[in-house]
Amino acid sequence: MKKDNNNGADIIRIPSRQMESEFFRILKKKGFSPGKAETCARIFTENSLDGVYSHGVYRFSRFVEFVDKKYVLADNEPELKSSSGAVEQWDGKLGPGPVNALICTERAMALSGEYGIGCVALSNTNHWMRGGTYGWKAAKAGFAFIGWTNTIANMPAWGAVDCRLGNNPLIFAVPYNNEAIVLDMAMSQFSYGMMESCLFSKRQLPLPGGYDKKGNLTTDPSAIIDSQRSLPIGYWKGAGLSLLLNLMAAVFSGGKATHEISKNEDDFGVSQVYIAIDISKLDNNRIIGRIINEIIDDYHNSIPESDSVNILYPGQRALNTRKENSYKGIPVERIVWDQIKDF
Amino acid sequence: MKKDNNNGADIIRIPSRQMESEFFRILKKKGFSPGKAETCARIFTENSLDGVYSHGVYRFSRFVEFVDKKYVLADNEPELKSSSGAVEQWDGKLGPGPVNALICTERAMALSGEYGIGCVALSNTNHWMRGGTYGWKAAKAGFAFIGWTNTIANMPAWGAVDCRLGNNPLIFAVPYNNEAIVLDMAMSQFSYGMMESCLFSKRQLPLPGGYDKKGNLTTDPSAIIDSQRSLPIGYWKGAGLSLLLNLMAAVFSGGKATHEISKNEDDFGVSQVYIAIDISKLDNNRIIGRIINEIIDDYHNSIPESDSVNILYPGQRALNTRKENSYKGIPVERIVWDQIKDF
Repeated sequence: MKKDNNNGADIIRIPSRQMESEFFRILKKKGFSPGKAETCARIFTENSLDGVYSHGVYRFSRFVEFVDKKYVLADNEPELKSSSGAVEQWDGKLGPGPVNALICTERAMALSGEYGIGCVALSNTNHWMRGGTYGWKAAKAGFAFIGWTNTIANMPAWGAVDCRLGNNPLIFAVPYNNEAIVLDMAMSQFSYGMMESCLFSKRQLPLPGGYDKKGNLTTDPSAIIDSQRSLPIGYWKGAGLSLLLNLMAAVFSGGKATHEISKNEDDFGVSQVYIAIDISKLDNNRIIGRIINEIIDDYHNSIPESDSVNILYPGQRALNTRKENSYKGIPVERIVWDQIKDF
Repeated sequence: MKKDNNNGADIIRIPSRQMESEFFRILKKKGFSPGKAETCARIFTENSLDGVYSHGVYRFSRFVEFVDKKYVLADNEPELKSSSGAVEQWDGKLGPGPVNALICTERAMALSGEYGIGCVALSNTNHWMRGGTYGWKAAKAGFAFIGWTNTIANMPAWGAVDCRLGNNPLIFAVPYNNEAIVLDMAMSQFSYGMMESCLFSKRQLPLPGGYDKKGNLTTDPSAIIDSQRSLPIGYWKGAGLSLLLNLMAAVFSGGKATHEISKNEDDFGVSQVYIAIDISKLDNNRIIGRIINEIIDDYHNSIPESDSVNILYPGQRALNTRKENSYKGIPVERIVWDQIKDF
């Protein structure tokens, strides 16, 4: 266990193996089967390793709280509801979101192995934590992947002041050498987690992230938290995409839409879509690696606006952080880790 | 023919039937078969009817110029290159973009009728004009649709100053009563067409649309045209999505990626993806209309930020404009229409 000091917080570094076994221990204690405990422990740890702490170690306690509140039903497994060729509908039975998500990703991959493309729509499931997890999973196995989830309402329609849209993270992933290029983006410019973190450390957002109560664009996180008017990416465009992702998630899965999820006390019982394309079945499969490399090489040849800027593809930062955290351990505030150990 | 005066320009209104038959006459003269001339004339007219003039009547002359330059090969038809179940690769043979796009949309619909979901990847094709056309087509026939195209480089990577990404329009569409909800969005916040139009009428952009040469966000269209640093939607997010759309378009189709298209003198020989989902095959098919209506009703219940704001779903404005233009005729500058008539 190493020690760091960062922004005044007492940061320690936990080896990933230790973090994973601690998560596993707790989930077993909370009634998870060994298989489900292993899957969730691994995903929470990998998300932390990749630097997505908000959906890793910093989310773990809330996940356990959701299990305690029976929002997440530890025992339940997803069930096939209906099938029509390359499209399947599954019922998540309110089971653990990461387990459901992984099963549906694998099922979409299997369907695409059979039909070229496969689509699984999942109703009645729970937060999948980092959507990118499933993009990495599929892409590292050689598949292209498109997936998304709907969420509780947390963003207004364009021109509106009340929240009726979710931030509905959308994932696009393709293989890249032995790793992956993974875009994992919410429809809001900044998450409330990011805004709260800026507020806590008395920083402004790096770019306008919403409106204040007077309707002015602002970088002040407290003004946006007050108004609840976080900014959709690309203004009306991200608001529109959020609506379409919600429509498709609810229609394809037969599950809840954002306005129905928002009747719950919290963000559970969501709808998700998993689409995989088996690129090994394409006629040009032998040169796909070269195509992707050429595109990324050209991308990396971009002229940066200053010497201090690195031009990164989506997922590249996660890969760098993964290397660093694998070596140094996963950084976490001592107080957070102590709480987890006390479970 | 009615007359309007708008911004000093001499605007006339052309009945859609007259516009369509004029386009048809010209395309026949330029070597299009009657079937292809009819398809293109209809699409250019419908785009204009829906208010997307930039990809309708104001684009027609450039389309004809591309035919004259043999960028668009009027005679050519797309050809099936390979097939693996629900995924097909087609070669567009540099034929007319709208014809190729319509054929591939219909093919994706047919595949989804067979497999639940269908994907057509099209290489070596030309500008499809308004991507929304194909979303409307599929959704009005009862299909969900996801499609996109890559383009010539016209936007920098995040943190870069030179253009290596395309604005790669992305379409999501679902049926809605007898019409459709159609999101048709480019990855750039504003098109160069929009910026030039603001510049021409000495207006600022309504929101920051790019960087000036000093690297400051600006609403000044001339500063962005100078720097060529147009803003991706959601900053790094839209840049990332543009990269992924290009990767998938090139990989799935085996066609050109943005950096290869950009070696051409102009924007031709692009790659596109068409995904259709036959929602009538889903188990919940009988209640899908109700699900969509409930989501849109909730969306329309949003509280607008002022009395002058209408909360519109993607495609709603097009529907309103279509009604108006069907009744009044399609507005076009007299000088533009006179040029077209002279072909």
